Amino acid sequence: MPFIHDDFLLGGETARRLYHEYAEDQPILDYHCHLPPQDVAADRRFANLTEIWLEGDHYKWRALRANGIPEELVTGAGSPKDKFLAWASTVPATLRNPLYHWTHLELARYFGITELLDESTAESIWERANEQLATPELSAHGILAKFQVKAVCTTDDPTDDLAYHRQIAASPLPTKVYPTFRPDKALNVHLPVQFNDWVGRLTDVSGIEVTDFGKFLDALQQRHDFFHSLGGRLSDHGLNQCFAVPCTEERAAYIFERARALVAATDSEQAEFASYLMHFFGVLDAEKGWTKQLHLMAQRSNNTRLLAQLGPDTGFDSIGDMPQIDALSRYLDGLDQQGSLPKTIIYNLNPAWNYAFATMAGNFQDGSVAGKIQFGSGWWFLDQKEAMEWQMNALSNCGLLSRFVGMLTDSRSFMSYPRHEYFRRTLCNLLGEDIDKGLLPRDMGLVGAMVRGICYGNARDYFGLSL
Amino acid sequence: MPFIHDDFLLGGETARRLYHEYAEDQPILDYHCHLPPQDVAADRRFANLTEIWLEGDHYKWRALRANGIPEELVTGAGSPKDKFLAWASTVPATLRNPLYHWTHLELARYFGITELLDESTAESIWERANEQLATPELSAHGILAKFQVKAVCTTDDPTDDLAYHRQIAASPLPTKVYPTFRPDKALNVHLPVQFNDWVGRLTDVSGIEVTDFGKFLDALQQRHDFFHSLGGRLSDHGLNQCFAVPCTEERAAYIFERARALVAATDSEQAEFASYLMHFFGVLDAEKGWTKQLHLMAQRSNNTRLLAQLGPDTGFDSIGDMPQIDALSRYLDGLDQQGSLPKTIIYNLNPAWNYAFATMAGNFQDGSVAGKIQFGSGWWFLDQKEAMEWQMNALSNCGLLSRFVGMLTDSRSFMSYPRHEYFRRTLCNLLGEDIDKGLLPRDMGLVGAMVRGICYGNARDYFGLSL
Amino acid sequence: MPFIHDDFLLGGETARRLYHEYAEDQPILDYHCHLPPQDVAADRRFANLTEIWLEGDHYKWRALRANGIPEELVTGAGSPKDKFLAWASTVPATLRNPLYHWTHLELARYFGITELLDESTAESIWERANEQLATPELSAHGILAKFQVKAVCTTDDPTDDLAYHRQIAASPLPTKVYPTFRPDKALNVHLPVQFNDWVGRLTDVSGIEVTDFGKFLDALQQRHDFFHSLGGRLSDHGLNQCFAVPCTEERAAYIFERARALVAATDSEQAEFASYLMHFFGVLDAEKGWTKQLHLMAQRSNNTRLLAQLGPDTGFDSIGDMPQIDALSRYLDGLDQQGSLPKTIIYNLNPAWNYAFATMAGNFQDGSVAGKIQFGSGWWFLDQKEAMEWQMNALSNCGLLSRFVGMLTDSRSFMSYPRHEYFRRTLCNLLGEDIDKGLLPRDMGLVGAMVRGICYGNARDYFGLSL
Repeated sequence: MPFIHDDFLLGGETARRLYHEYAEDQPILDYHCHLPPQDVAADRRFANLTEIWLEGDHYKWRALRANGIPEELVTGAGSPKDKFLAWASTVPATLRNPLYHWTHLELARYFGITELLDESTAESIWERANEQLATPELSAHGILAKFQVKAVCTTDDPTDDLAYHRQIAASPLPTKVYPTFRPDKALNVHLPVQFNDWVGRLTDVSGIEVTDFGKFLDALQQRHDFFHSLGGRLSDHGLNQCFAVPCTEERAAYIFERARALVAATDSEQAEFASYLMHFFGVLDAEKGWTKQLHLMAQRSNNTRLLAQLGPDTGFDSIGDMPQIDALSRYLDGLDQQGSLPKTIIYNLNPAWNYAFATMAGNFQDGSVAGKIQFGSGWWFLDQKEAMEWQMNALSNCGLLSRFVGMLTDSRSFMSYPRHEYFRRTLCNLLGEDIDKGLLPRDMGLVGAMVRGICYGNARDYFGLSL
Repeated sequence: MPFIHDDFLLGGETARRLYHEYAEDQPILDYHCHLPPQDVAADRRFANLTEIWLEGDHYKWRALRANGIPEELVTGAGSPKDKFLAWASTVPATLRNPLYHWTHLELARYFGITELLDESTAESIWERANEQLATPELSAHGILAKFQVKAVCTTDDPTDDLAYHRQIAASPLPTKVYPTFRPDKALNVHLPVQFNDWVGRLTDVSGIEVTDFGKFLDALQQRHDFFHSLGGRLSDHGLNQCFAVPCTEERAAYIFERARALVAATDSEQAEFASYLMHFFGVLDAEKGWTKQLHLMAQRSNNTRLLAQLGPDTGFDSIGDMPQIDALSRYLDGLDQQGSLPKTIIYNLNPAWNYAFATMAGNFQDGSVAGKIQFGSGWWFLDQKEAMEWQMNALSNCGLLSRFVGMLTDSRSFMSYPRHEYFRRTLCNLLGEDIDKGLLPRDMGLVGAMVRGICYGNARDYFGLSL
Repeated sequence: MPFIHDDFLLGGETARRLYHEYAEDQPILDYHCHLPPQDVAADRRFANLTEIWLEGDHYKWRALRANGIPEELVTGAGSPKDKFLAWASTVPATLRNPLYHWTHLELARYFGITELLDESTAESIWERANEQLATPELSAHGILAKFQVKAVCTTDDPTDDLAYHRQIAASPLPTKVYPTFRPDKALNVHLPVQFNDWVGRLTDVSGIEVTDFGKFLDALQQRHDFFHSLGGRLSDHGLNQCFAVPCTEERAAYIFERARALVAATDSEQAEFASYLMHFFGVLDAEKGWTKQLHLMAQRSNNTRLLAQLGPDTGFDSIGDMPQIDALSRYLDGLDQQGSLPKTIIYNLNPAWNYAFATMAGNFQDGSVAGKIQFGSGWWFLDQKEAMEWQMNALSNCGLLSRFVGMLTDSRSFMSYPRHEYFRRTLCNLLGEDIDKGLLPRDMGLVGAMVRGICYGNARDYFGLSL
């Protein structure tokens, strides 16, 4: 039996039935990812495994470095094939890391390759995979069709003109591709050079000349409207911590004007400004029925030397430990008090905070929408079996698993769709075990309906995307 | 086989034997709860399932809101029956939440009802349960007898005259009902209007005119003495965080006088004052051999809008993340240094802090009383299978499970006694699994004696209540 | 079947094969412990079980106190036999605590005693064990041979003249005994009396008169060189938290001079000074290819009363909860930026921080050495089955388990070598279960090689000790 087989991760007949009868055939709604829209627009083809599989994958880069592989074969000048061989030699060292599962699941699902990848199989796998990459079945569009991807929400800067999204919308591609409003750069008053450059681009793309703080807000709202007009229904924020200190409009305008005059905001000024804007963004989302996503508890950019060499998002981020429940409470409460709390998904990167976040979500359920405040799926380092189970257990015990909008890839790669399968197998295994232990009733219809909802139906109903 | 059957939660023959032979028949000593003493005094009867089951149950309210049920059917003007139907329709959405287990365990134990509650069974269950509620078997006294409740410790304000406790003590009710001294309001110098109102009531009930800080302490001590005279042997404090900053008597008196003059204490003054009083309360407890309970790491009252509408304890509290081990250490140490550290139970609401609390307890075990400092049972959001196991595993690995005083309901409802059964099944399942895995010796007498101790015997010996 | 049998902790045929075929026969490289080198030099013999087993064992002391045993029979004037009897009567109360496993594993491995220790077996076990302790097989050297201990790294102050290490090196003992450089006392500028006393000893032992801060650094370097000359390749730091605030050499020199003049450093001065020195120590380690060990998140010396009576390391330490990821990041980054980040092992005492530490390690893997930054083995309260599994799972999911340098005793006692066996059984059980569940390939050679590496080979290759 190959390592990846029909019942991979499914530890019993009940789990198998749940997966094969209720989960397996569900389509994918990938409501948060980092796919480049231009690759979808161009129906990109990939020259080889390194191009589609290793480029941009900082999970693999971290594993390579930890395995003693020099940077040349990680992100450096090494040839695509040498990089692949370095990866192949590292795969056996990743036993018990999620990469070991993902690697073999991806080889199986994209290429039908079921041998284990290591130095001895590397050559043959390289040849066979590259051959198949040359076929239309494994172009960007081919992949989206193969995995039944109903919709993809990319992650986009407000200054993006969304030209590729418009191009895709006008194409016959059956997968819907929607933009997500991610205005992180609007908060950067502590980095005035970059900030002013960004405000310049905002002026250009919005057609609103940002002469003062009011115009700045107008331009941001114009972009929010524009994203909405192209079908976008989600915003996203990547914050190490939530911002929720009091800040009047006058104060925000003052900090804004200083930054425009190239005076960097202090840490506390930046927190004030960010608090003001985060509230403003919440109001925008609530007005249009959008869903706000908060990605919390990262500790980014730790390695100065390698960041200087390689830039951000190259594998030098990890998990933070700063208290932030109070700030999150004040943020959500501030919006709720004025009737402007949008649907919200809170993603947490530190598993020790799961219960604190899951119970905080419960404080702002108000009966208006089932599962209004979501405790989001296992994110980044937590996107693996152990931590996905923790997230689902925390959500189950502190909230309603049945209302969970489920999995997303959060990926930069077209090779990540099996993450949905991985999640679904983990979910069904968890529920199947519960039934076998008598912790859930042995009622396949009841539990199967929950499975279907979490795989697809809940997300379909919750986000209000046009599908 | 019904969902709730004889061996519910018991995953093997060993676990079953432990439960049925050692745990099942043990009486209940519910040493911490929030039952209204007047309901016991009056031998209250309940008109219907909503009255006994949904009123005041903020666990269920949170689930209803998360399921998209409007407030009218949660705490609002909806009829009792409509509220019950809303709950019945929500129950299937609570799969994997402890409410799903509790609901069916309670239906089985109080009413002998073993169907699953959902929309299809709601009508029939409503009828049958209400019929039984009309019988004396399910009055307050009937319930206490049915569940072999030896003693109940309620939670009471020092200004309470304990009239109902005196009435109960004079009645033939075999269950003992003792007050617990919970002086949280004595710390509220930051809310001077409420504080002075409370000091007024303290004067009235104690007969000691509170003209200065010394008299304030005298009056508090008088109430402590009075609680003792009625059999109370526990105090309790609901604190988000422990208070342990230095504060002299003069300083405390100054802050007290200012509050009496309606000047609100600042945050740091309040912390000083609270530190002084918490130490004072510790000394009172130690002098009389009482047990002090500390409930830590809540993050209360997060939702301003709904709190304004519904008041406190209505489902808007969650789990905090502020460091507090250092303060707890200083608090316990301050008392220990002057030989005034009472028996203490530390309840923790954030499971990520379990090991820190469990090991802190170990620092103050002094050989005087077995299990003197207890790491308390899973509390509130942690009062479910996963988190009870975490608490017991942390206590086992960092201390002595065998000395654990075990479960309590912490409940406002007469429907919560099956929580003890739920806990005991979880305990026996854990120990049975350990035996089956060879992690504990297969010596049923040895392990069974530990089970009996945790179910009842340890609490009986530890608290010194008259039973 | 006795409680400790051939397959103790091994939950299936696969686990058993892994353990018996790959782990059991591996030698021990105990790269971090607190054994007294004079005991090795003298080939110490032990008069009785209390001497070898209870003296200095603060794990057992905590259990005794929690069980209500008075201090007289813990660390006090009680006779060795009475102390042993007190321990024997406490053992049954430690069910589910790691002490229960360790106790019986140690009795079995050192003495071939397989009965359970309790009051009824105490006399007989006392007799039989003491008889065996009188034989050369259970002298210090006998024990090192019996457990195949290839090397032991003790923990030593820089002012130690390492006379015993030199004596051992000159002896025919096949076990290598190397010193570890632990300069915690060099940071104590907030305790100027002790500090100056220590600087005096540093002058004496180094032969470098410490007339100013430069000479202080010279003397520290001289000791580092000296430890290196005796084969030492590790340093160690016991810090509640990492120090990483900016501090120039001038500033450090100023704080140093003040301490020399008996002016205690303030908290923030001490943090500056410690930051400067910790960076300096990092550079020394990197220059010589040493491995730095950081022991983080302890909360030490909580019980003032008993500490005053018994001194440090007597059982009054526990687990801290202060955020420190940011400081650790800055510490490692500061060294890395100047190319002076040594191989580093981060030991964490608060399991809630596992993922934060494990992912932080990944930020500084640079491809130079496989597993350069190690997330260290379960430490102190975490040196038990549950927490060792957590550590290995965190490392597996966030890094490379295959590169893990594995277990150490961290012990003051010659009775602790079975901790390696305990760890290996836990490791093999974890991996065997994974294979049985299909989470790892059923390839015994592949997984077995990883087992061997973690048991011994990785540490042999990583530390560069002469073996």
